[in-house]
Amino acid sequence: MNPRLPNIPPSLIRRIAAKRKPDSIDLGLGEPSLMPAQSHLDAAAFRAKERGLHYTANAGDLELRAAIAQHYAYPGMSGAQSVCVTVGSQEATYVAFKTLLDPQRDELIILEPAFPAYPKIARLEGVATRTVALREEDDFAFDAERIVAAVGPQTRAIVICSPCNPTGRVLRVDQAQLLADALLRRGGEPVWLIHDEVYREQTFVDDAAHLADVYPHTISLNSVSKSNALTGLRLGWLIAPPPFVEQATKVHAWIASCADTFAQSVALDIFATRDGIAEHAGWYRDRVAEVRAVLAESGLRALPIDGTFYACVRLRDGASSLDTALALADERNVIAIPGIAFGESFDRWLRLSWVADIDILREGLRRIASWT
Amino acid sequence: MNPRLPNIPPSLIRRIAAKRKPDSIDLGLGEPSLMPAQSHLDAAAFRAKERGLHYTANAGDLELRAAIAQHYAYPGMSGAQSVCVTVGSQEATYVAFKTLLDPQRDELIILEPAFPAYPKIARLEGVATRTVALREEDDFAFDAERIVAAVGPQTRAIVICSPCNPTGRVLRVDQAQLLADALLRRGGEPVWLIHDEVYREQTFVDDAAHLADVYPHTISLNSVSKSNALTGLRLGWLIAPPPFVEQATKVHAWIASCADTFAQSVALDIFATRDGIAEHAGWYRDRVAEVRAVLAESGLRALPIDGTFYACVRLRDGASSLDTALALADERNVIAIPGIAFGESFDRWLRLSWVADIDILREGLRRIASWT
Repeated sequence: MNPRLPNIPPSLIRRIAAKRKPDSIDLGLGEPSLMPAQSHLDAAAFRAKERGLHYTANAGDLELRAAIAQHYAYPGMSGAQSVCVTVGSQEATYVAFKTLLDPQRDELIILEPAFPAYPKIARLEGVATRTVALREEDDFAFDAERIVAAVGPQTRAIVICSPCNPTGRVLRVDQAQLLADALLRRGGEPVWLIHDEVYREQTFVDDAAHLADVYPHTISLNSVSKSNALTGLRLGWLIAPPPFVEQATKVHAWIASCADTFAQSVALDIFATRDGIAEHAGWYRDRVAEVRAVLAESGLRALPIDGTFYACVRLRDGASSLDTALALADERNVIAIPGIAFGESFDRWLRLSWVADIDILREGLRRIASWT
Repeated sequence: MNPRLPNIPPSLIRRIAAKRKPDSIDLGLGEPSLMPAQSHLDAAAFRAKERGLHYTANAGDLELRAAIAQHYAYPGMSGAQSVCVTVGSQEATYVAFKTLLDPQRDELIILEPAFPAYPKIARLEGVATRTVALREEDDFAFDAERIVAAVGPQTRAIVICSPCNPTGRVLRVDQAQLLADALLRRGGEPVWLIHDEVYREQTFVDDAAHLADVYPHTISLNSVSKSNALTGLRLGWLIAPPPFVEQATKVHAWIASCADTFAQSVALDIFATRDGIAEHAGWYRDRVAEVRAVLAESGLRALPIDGTFYACVRLRDGASSLDTALALADERNVIAIPGIAFGESFDRWLRLSWVADIDILREGLRRIASWT
């Protein structure tokens, strides 16, 4: 057996989610509660009926690759050759890490609180990581200076999730520019930025940065999962300079051959629809003001919600987020994700999703506040 | 960049396939030409309309896992816990190798001629391989004695594709029993058998072996790609003892989260349909007699077709299969896959698929015979 495997713990998020009962107040969800637009599924079904479901090229259907590249239009990455279509952004992350990093030599910087897949994939691949903990006193805002200060001679990449799962914070244009400038000044072999922007269509600030706009050595990861309520479709992509995509496509080919042709048709219809990728964005924007009000009502300390569909609330000093989450599930029938799932430095926090009805969130917050 | 990548050559099969013109005699296809049954796609579309497309559990929908396990009913592997649903059999292969093999220590035996993904995935993972070349004088029949003779102290697994892409040969029950007995007698840490049976529904002999029936340390790989003309759906699975599946599911989760929920619904409908997985098997059985007759007509030496939808023909001594395939594409407008894509020992052969119209195969064979 691969000796790295038994030492990597199973998902804490799934452990907590498994405690869900039919009548639970479920604030643990990591996926939209909206239904996907039927039109995209119908278009794909029609196409499958006409053409069957054959393999596409490894990197994906050329028309879809071109549509994705054109939509984001990152400098130097606006052609189809800059896109590899993947099995959700999860496979895009895996392929990006695997293609970019040499386990013998390279180090990956992970910002904490971090989506657990990053350290786990790095451990699976035997890649060294360095953790930069963002500061609670800054409400875990992205801090370019702290990130740059952590870059060492072995650093080859920095993975940044913005809008951030779990914190809901967004990297701003000024911080992105500071980061890009510092990395460009550094010279030598470039440090790559891996920008996970899977919550891009849930952004509630005006100055959100897209790293590929300001830094050429950027790999952007995204999918239709959160934007279009299609988590189950497993359709994502990475956007990067063409020479990187050429190598990444080999890794992708040996892992998956190609992404699902039906799913690619759905995505093609989304990108062919005006504002298709943003069709649910208004719902989240409308909802967030209400969520902020309900959070304020609760009396709990909460992080500013710049993006995503999560809200994070502070437990009392000394509380264990795991013990609290387990007790809330067992004693108060509330499912909430313990901060420890995202790193030690987030152990005083809970991540709550607000995709369910607003009254569910209100009731969940009431139970959490009365418990803690 | 991961230093293993630039040294792994791109796909030779795709290089030849790229020479296809609209009027080519295309014998290069690696996928069925039949259309998939519409009923399974309709069932999945209906379910998606009702329920949306949410994540399933990492290892797949429990009902589907149970249906797959029950259908094959391998000893000790007939429950849902023995199945991990994957992104086609390609990801099942990747996950099986990655879960099972320790690159620091283990060696994988690959039988040649071999599906190119096996050595490529092994190289990507840094796993040592040992090649056992099956013998041309035996028409590349599976030879348990030769395989057992190659097992060394570092050997941890043997990957066997039966029905075999490219040769079309099938591992028979007697050879499988010899292999299983020898490995069981060996004692110590078990050598695993990885049985790629993706062409199982294209089997034309009565004594085909399923290794999991006779050997407990078997991982079976399969998909609906070839059986149901759904290559583009990317829906496969691995069947193995539950403790292996538990570890494999972690790898699968970090690579892909889960397989496409729509695709899982299609597969669920296939397994819920009587003989659904075998619904195209009759077409291939009916066709193969005709194919054998056309091959005999051609005057070329051909391998017996025990299974798959391929036929392999011998070039003259000293011919290079790559040069021949390139020349056939450029000078005779015939697309055929050069044997060298499957290993040095298959360099005097071409792989031809016979999923197209029989007259296309006849004309292709005529052009190949007149060229060589």
